[in-house]
Amino acid sequence: MTQSFQPPKRILMGPGPSDVHHRVLEAMARPTIGHLDPAFIGMMDQVKAMLQTAFFTGNALTLAVSGPGSAGMEACFVNLIEPDETVVVCVNGVFGGRMKENVERCGAKAVVVEDAWGTPVDPDKVEAALKANPGVKALAFVHAETSTGVESDARTLCELAREYGALSIVDAVTSLGGIPVLVDPWGADAVYSGSQKCLSCTPGLSPVTFSDRAVEALAARKTKVRSWFLDFSLLTAYWGGGAKRAYHHTAPINALYGLHESLVMLHEEGIEQSWTRHTMMHRALLAGLEAMGLGLLVAEGARLPQLNAVLVPAGIDEAAARTQLLQKYGLEIGAGLGGLAGKVWRIGLMGQSATPRHVATCLDALEDVLAAQGVKLPTGAGVAAAERMLRD
Amino acid sequence: MTQSFQPPKRILMGPGPSDVHHRVLEAMARPTIGHLDPAFIGMMDQVKAMLQTAFFTGNALTLAVSGPGSAGMEACFVNLIEPDETVVVCVNGVFGGRMKENVERCGAKAVVVEDAWGTPVDPDKVEAALKANPGVKALAFVHAETSTGVESDARTLCELAREYGALSIVDAVTSLGGIPVLVDPWGADAVYSGSQKCLSCTPGLSPVTFSDRAVEALAARKTKVRSWFLDFSLLTAYWGGGAKRAYHHTAPINALYGLHESLVMLHEEGIEQSWTRHTMMHRALLAGLEAMGLGLLVAEGARLPQLNAVLVPAGIDEAAARTQLLQKYGLEIGAGLGGLAGKVWRIGLMGQSATPRHVATCLDALEDVLAAQGVKLPTGAGVAAAERMLRD
Repeated sequence: MTQSFQPPKRILMGPGPSDVHHRVLEAMARPTIGHLDPAFIGMMDQVKAMLQTAFFTGNALTLAVSGPGSAGMEACFVNLIEPDETVVVCVNGVFGGRMKENVERCGAKAVVVEDAWGTPVDPDKVEAALKANPGVKALAFVHAETSTGVESDARTLCELAREYGALSIVDAVTSLGGIPVLVDPWGADAVYSGSQKCLSCTPGLSPVTFSDRAVEALAARKTKVRSWFLDFSLLTAYWGGGAKRAYHHTAPINALYGLHESLVMLHEEGIEQSWTRHTMMHRALLAGLEAMGLGLLVAEGARLPQLNAVLVPAGIDEAAARTQLLQKYGLEIGAGLGGLAGKVWRIGLMGQSATPRHVATCLDALEDVLAAQGVKLPTGAGVAAAERMLRD
Repeated sequence: MTQSFQPPKRILMGPGPSDVHHRVLEAMARPTIGHLDPAFIGMMDQVKAMLQTAFFTGNALTLAVSGPGSAGMEACFVNLIEPDETVVVCVNGVFGGRMKENVERCGAKAVVVEDAWGTPVDPDKVEAALKANPGVKALAFVHAETSTGVESDARTLCELAREYGALSIVDAVTSLGGIPVLVDPWGADAVYSGSQKCLSCTPGLSPVTFSDRAVEALAARKTKVRSWFLDFSLLTAYWGGGAKRAYHHTAPINALYGLHESLVMLHEEGIEQSWTRHTMMHRALLAGLEAMGLGLLVAEGARLPQLNAVLVPAGIDEAAARTQLLQKYGLEIGAGLGGLAGKVWRIGLMGQSATPRHVATCLDALEDVLAAQGVKLPTGAGVAAAERMLRD
């Protein structure tokens, strides 16, 4: 007979999920109530309002899709893109490639603007693509590439989309809560995120917001949305304000308790303070890494504080190092994906995992596993450098 | 500042979610670990094995879709149905209608076999439709119609599908765990369920199983699956056995802890024992209802034990009664949907909500709210009849 599952103790510093605060876990363990219960509907309204604040938007269509970030991505594409339309897709990592897949599965044509993994999207190339393809329906790009740790200039890209009459579709899975995601100031049209990154909730929900322009594009569709489950013309009647709520699907009640609590915590801290904390921890980690002779894949100026792609030194068995980190320290960091497999470690400083304790634990453990592979470093140099950075 | 959410105390006897056992809630509150953690992968393997047992199948493609039952439904259609194919869809309630929507959004043609709401699917009509449409790709039907409380003859319908060379797509959202769902003995090809009905887990996951025939049909597709998120040709690499697991999306870790625990509890009880318990509680509830002069929509022989559509007596304000049940007793029962709105109450006896205590509480409370609307009943007649039934 299978026994109850007891997860091992872990410190989550990979590309997500991040450590989940016990307040969020406790919230998820509260008794399940009905998804049409007036009390639950009131809670959904609060989730919506807190997401609007976090996204810096007044968008009426702001909700949490009942699935992980990939479902949020798909929701943006299936609702906005119709067969035979053209979408300019920026690809500078795994998730740009996934956007291209989404466009094609909508029966539309993807015009790809490629940039090297580890570099931001080049707005000049994007403008050239928009100019060369009049009537483009949308420009899609990843704000914070989880596969490389690069931030692209979302404001400039959203402005370019507007200039050329295209909608902007923005992947903010890893950015929301960690760095500014300014939906209304940018004029972004469709933005999706994930619960398990800088919001430090458990995985499984995807906050999404649509501008009025996006809502109009949805209303003006000539064809039905290809997904019933993700059709926002049906979902908005479910997430719409007021007590008269149309049944669409059964919302993941307890997961939404968790997201609610994580948003309460974000607002208690203050979203600007959360950004500052992520930046501070990144600086501390970087100081420590540099003191240990390690460097980052991404050039200064385009680095995400919450996702640090660390170059694996020559001669190091990076997989063995990760296994040792997990087994000896319970510390999870991420591997490289695609062309970066074997070449980088991805160290996340997201949400509850962006603390001085996490930075120190990680640097300490890294020093130990590097030593195990013959890299001699002055004892505690990384942690000392990080602590100095945090003091100054 | 928004405060933490404290749900009110409820007794869930609607069409789902059902009451969630504290063991499942506690499991969900365990610390989040990574979705590629070896410990998590081991747990996923156990979930898969326990789902195979619950479904009575050896199907290798058995997994929990990272979304609610509607996502599981969509997964079956988008993976198996290609544009311009024909699907015979049986519609005898809300969820058959949703299947038709899914077929059409796949770009395929739905041949609808209609039966009155509250009656089972008529196999003769289905056979006529299969005969009249040679080359039909699939036959889709709802085993347990949550909107009416009707069970259709899944074995006969699956056999008809095979006979005419069609795949069978079976909605078992409300049936799994409550009545027999015998995937291999029936020869069913694609079956989906939900976590929040007779499994008594929280909503948000959808167990799905595909026969080898269904897997072959997926492999033989001429077009890509329209959904990237639900593409089983990618997902199986994620849920496939062994330690070499390809990243697809971030699984809802803590929700899966909950499903794992609910399946452990199902197997502790024994699935046949669970079916018997659901039948017993249905009989007790029915005895009580009849003693109170109330009857069911569905004729004997086609009644689901776990979903009882009770005819609202003439002159009763059914919405006011439900409101009073919720406010005075914390008891949630369901309203009628579609053409049954205002005409039935839907009383669920699912999973942890199928207990003598639930039956008695419900009958007691119903007597009280009926009395409030002027229906004089002998005090305690319903509960007494239910108790007699359970004793005998």
